[in-house]
Amino acid sequence: MTEFGFINSIKTLCADLHKNGFEGIGDDCAVFEFSERESLLFTTDLLCEGVHFLRHATSARELGGKALAVNLSDIAAMGARPVATLLSLSLPAEATEEWAAEFMEGYHALSKRYGVALIGGDTTRSQRDIVISVTAIGRAANDHIKRRSEAETRDVIFTTAPLGGSDAGLHDILDGHIDTPLADLHRNPCPEIEKGQWLGARHEVHAMMDISDGIASDLRHIMTASHKGAVIDLDRVPVAEGATLKQALCGGEEYRLLFTASFEAAEQLARDFERRFRTPLYPIGRITEGAQLKWREHGTEVELDWTGFTHY
Amino acid sequence: MTEFGFINSIKTLCADLHKNGFEGIGDDCAVFEFSERESLLFTTDLLCEGVHFLRHATSARELGGKALAVNLSDIAAMGARPVATLLSLSLPAEATEEWAAEFMEGYHALSKRYGVALIGGDTTRSQRDIVISVTAIGRAANDHIKRRSEAETRDVIFTTAPLGGSDAGLHDILDGHIDTPLADLHRNPCPEIEKGQWLGARHEVHAMMDISDGIASDLRHIMTASHKGAVIDLDRVPVAEGATLKQALCGGEEYRLLFTASFEAAEQLARDFERRFRTPLYPIGRITEGAQLKWREHGTEVELDWTGFTHY
Repeated sequence: MTEFGFINSIKTLCADLHKNGFEGIGDDCAVFEFSERESLLFTTDLLCEGVHFLRHATSARELGGKALAVNLSDIAAMGARPVATLLSLSLPAEATEEWAAEFMEGYHALSKRYGVALIGGDTTRSQRDIVISVTAIGRAANDHIKRRSEAETRDVIFTTAPLGGSDAGLHDILDGHIDTPLADLHRNPCPEIEKGQWLGARHEVHAMMDISDGIASDLRHIMTASHKGAVIDLDRVPVAEGATLKQALCGGEEYRLLFTASFEAAEQLARDFERRFRTPLYPIGRITEGAQLKWREHGTEVELDWTGFTHY
Repeated sequence: MTEFGFINSIKTLCADLHKNGFEGIGDDCAVFEFSERESLLFTTDLLCEGVHFLRHATSARELGGKALAVNLSDIAAMGARPVATLLSLSLPAEATEEWAAEFMEGYHALSKRYGVALIGGDTTRSQRDIVISVTAIGRAANDHIKRRSEAETRDVIFTTAPLGGSDAGLHDILDGHIDTPLADLHRNPCPEIEKGQWLGARHEVHAMMDISDGIASDLRHIMTASHKGAVIDLDRVPVAEGATLKQALCGGEEYRLLFTASFEAAEQLARDFERRFRTPLYPIGRITEGAQLKWREHGTEVELDWTGFTHY
């Protein structure tokens, strides 16, 4: 069974549970509207040695930062501000006190940078592998929250940075080249906390998520949730230096933003974004009627059977 | 370094982070007061194969229930109602779809029993071991929340059930007797959700927590947080059938409640509790001035060097 297959079976099994005011599985975060004005948002990620990282190819400090970053990215991807995390660590006997202290230094430094509290957690032994679980909590004005289901026909599809670098870096690491700039990028993702909140406050931004499994997979989540189709212009997809177009479309663990915005307001939005962040937005396609994802090259439809990155 | 030593070093490192309205590490749960009347509470636990359970000695269904139960217990231990959870599962290739489906059945059944939503999570592969991470969210009236720091001198110390059975069951399992009633109890803890909420609503109840590392260890958390001492009457500690006094005092994973209540109101509280739940409260000692934990047998102080259960 695939990860998504298993998640769907859990959704079906748990459909009869009380919601207790929580909007659950389906977006980057669950949402709890705690007042007429504001909500808390919740997300969690598990990182396992040998699957998500190799102990010899990453420093403890980098791993502490990355474990936090991937969760903060999910909060930012809904337009919210991260406010608190819970951290659980399972360490084998040979992960020394020094390793744990360095991990915490990386976790603490990124928490401090984004003003996020550490409010709880759990520490245990493990038999062999290091396992890290982080739950992040965000806070947002109710009318700033961006959901995958809000894309509208004719919306422009944007991404916030050249893509594929993280995947190219992962290949460098797997090939034993752990010191390349792209390997460094893969180990040190930079969640778009300020950009996510800024886009959250813009009403012309409709659907948003972060790119964790590659556009080719992630965009389908927006399409499914919004009951829409999409067309992507391959010649407009920004490709990171050292990466291929395929990596830009299918590479996982980018932690950049993918969003749709009203066609009429899109140009002004891109100008305001560039003025604010000194970096452009990249329009890569459009939302359409229907349910299909189409690829275009110089205006002509092409066939691609590329799908996203699969961890599971 | 011990688990508590590591947690203390994390507390020190992270003392400079913004709290963002969250009351953090130190109680069973973190607390976020979202209105003048109510709070959300947060707790998380990690269960690792070979450390917290043995795959051959527990069914997937039981493990699904236990992973949830230990978290709900932390919520109940502060007087709150569990409302939602996030669940992350890391499974090696040989944990089949059938195993995962049975695990979810156990998790779902207990969620349904206590009216708890499943709002998110993560599923990944692991190299070898099964790892389960649960984050639970509770909700309570602000004036119902019980903290470890609220014990007062002269308070009566209560527990809600005979103790030591879970530890005796663990020893049965480790000895290869996985089918005994106590082994069954160890695998199927029964979190005291209704009792915790009922005690939360009683103002004469001061400090409360759940027994996860044994009274001898857990009571010290209440003493330290409240800056008090305590005396325990060994002849009043209720010992589960098949367990020893040492197991009742030092055995972990009981998930029963340990709390203190005003001396003047204690008898009435115990009567009301027994009328409501058809099971007694067990007064086992008193809170004192000072900082020492003393043990008494038939009114005479005795020396004991027993400490609590250590996972780490």
